[in-house]
Amino acid sequence: MSLLVVGSVAYDSVETPFGKRSNVLGGSALFFSLAAGFFCPVNLVAVVGKDFCKKDIDFLKRKKINLNGLEIAEGKTFRWKGRYSADFNNRETIFTHLNVFENFNPILPEQYKKSGYVFLANIDPDLQLKVLKQISKPRLTACDSMNLWIENKRASLMKVLKVIEIFIVNDSEAKQLTGRSNLIKAGNKMLTMGPKMVVIKKGEHGALVFTKQFKFCSAAYPLENVCDPTGSGDAFAGGFMGYLAMKKSLTKSNFKKAVIYGSILASFNVESFSIERLKKLKQAEINKRFREFKELISF
Amino acid sequence: MSLLVVGSVAYDSVETPFGKRSNVLGGSALFFSLAAGFFCPVNLVAVVGKDFCKKDIDFLKRKKINLNGLEIAEGKTFRWKGRYSADFNNRETIFTHLNVFENFNPILPEQYKKSGYVFLANIDPDLQLKVLKQISKPRLTACDSMNLWIENKRASLMKVLKVIEIFIVNDSEAKQLTGRSNLIKAGNKMLTMGPKMVVIKKGEHGALVFTKQFKFCSAAYPLENVCDPTGSGDAFAGGFMGYLAMKKSLTKSNFKKAVIYGSILASFNVESFSIERLKKLKQAEINKRFREFKELISF
Repeated sequence: MSLLVVGSVAYDSVETPFGKRSNVLGGSALFFSLAAGFFCPVNLVAVVGKDFCKKDIDFLKRKKINLNGLEIAEGKTFRWKGRYSADFNNRETIFTHLNVFENFNPILPEQYKKSGYVFLANIDPDLQLKVLKQISKPRLTACDSMNLWIENKRASLMKVLKVIEIFIVNDSEAKQLTGRSNLIKAGNKMLTMGPKMVVIKKGEHGALVFTKQFKFCSAAYPLENVCDPTGSGDAFAGGFMGYLAMKKSLTKSNFKKAVIYGSILASFNVESFSIERLKKLKQAEINKRFREFKELISF
Repeated sequence: MSLLVVGSVAYDSVETPFGKRSNVLGGSALFFSLAAGFFCPVNLVAVVGKDFCKKDIDFLKRKKINLNGLEIAEGKTFRWKGRYSADFNNRETIFTHLNVFENFNPILPEQYKKSGYVFLANIDPDLQLKVLKQISKPRLTACDSMNLWIENKRASLMKVLKVIEIFIVNDSEAKQLTGRSNLIKAGNKMLTMGPKMVVIKKGEHGALVFTKQFKFCSAAYPLENVCDPTGSGDAFAGGFMGYLAMKKSLTKSNFKKAVIYGSILASFNVESFSIERLKKLKQAEINKRFREFKELISF
């Protein structure tokens, strides 16, 4: 069943302790699509500028990502530059040029409106609500957010949480949103805000899943060589939602496995800059890492 | 088979966001012994002062901890006072009065010398070496350490690591000792220093196990109410070594389960101040939490 993602497609410039890249593919919807594409067809909604390279369009088409919802607007593509500290625990934003993304107004192509699975990547919660109104009876909806919206658009974000089924959020955002420094308290608190499931991403420390029916704690796949964490949260969400869209039946077992596949896609993503690792990634490598991961965390 | 622990027994004063306690039982060997005591007989080696209360001696005897190695020396018992930050991420030491612990010279009673399992809690690595020389053919040895020895007694600590079988260390110490900010690199690096197994404790984020034959990643048992983390690393080590001493056969499966039991004992320990929770803890509660934990991390 098709999986819709609405978010950003960008050109990123990144500096990490292991090197740098300039004007390489990035954006939440892009990382998500590439990760989810290993499991199911992906319908992308995003906006880029006239400067968006044809070779990048061709690449996304080759990856069988449906680009009918990719608007090419007058102006420049969203550009972001950031720098990571030596231990990757801090990220400094050097610039954010929203460009065409500033006026992003997601309109779903007719054929997208019946996407069974929906992921609203990190965009203005008012836009997330607008997207949700255009979709008829999705089987499963999920969203991400960020500190900017928690601070400045809290009321809108709370409206999103009232109607979304799964909220995927990182640890610092979970603490910020709930005012709880204990992540278990934060997860339980977010469950009271509306979502049926809350997934807290903890980066190198794994993920926590909260529902009223069950909880799940996953370690992260242990990686010796982390090159660039950009997009790993979106790759996690892509693996998670892609796996669920592929499996169709929304059982506890499938939700847990979806978290593991999300972690695996994130673990591959951080091994290289930008989308370099996801671009080359083979299905067989995902399956192999799943087996290794199972052995690593089973007892 | 008997499990020997050498370390501190102290009176702690602690302030956390949830309250405070003054002059309550503490010390690495004490937390370890209480946790391990759920699985096997424990031989304790430590020193206390003449001020050590008879009721505390009686309590330890009731817990069937062998106190033949507990020296009662002229002077006062080791006292420590600390304060935790609101999110428990920082601990400030208000005072450390070593008192009789300053001249601690661990001499093993004859009957202890054949303890099959040995844990050298966080003491001067020169003393750890001295203890190891007194033991004949242990089945399994493990030790802990701390930032103080990594900084000031590195050469001695490296000698310990050459002869110890399991090194149990927390994440910040692992980074400090190896100069690696990536914990997987740090774990692999420590394996080259001598131990056959390295266990990195990550507190609320679980634990990582490194051997040449296998690795294991465990999430932590998710706790909503953390009251006082003092001694949780020692309770972890106690659960871990105690389980291994009880099971006898040192298989991969038993090592993994030992980590889970270690995590469970640590999770109980942090629920109350000092040893309050371990004091009341029942075997049935441990078994119940083991089953819950298995469900929480299985997929």
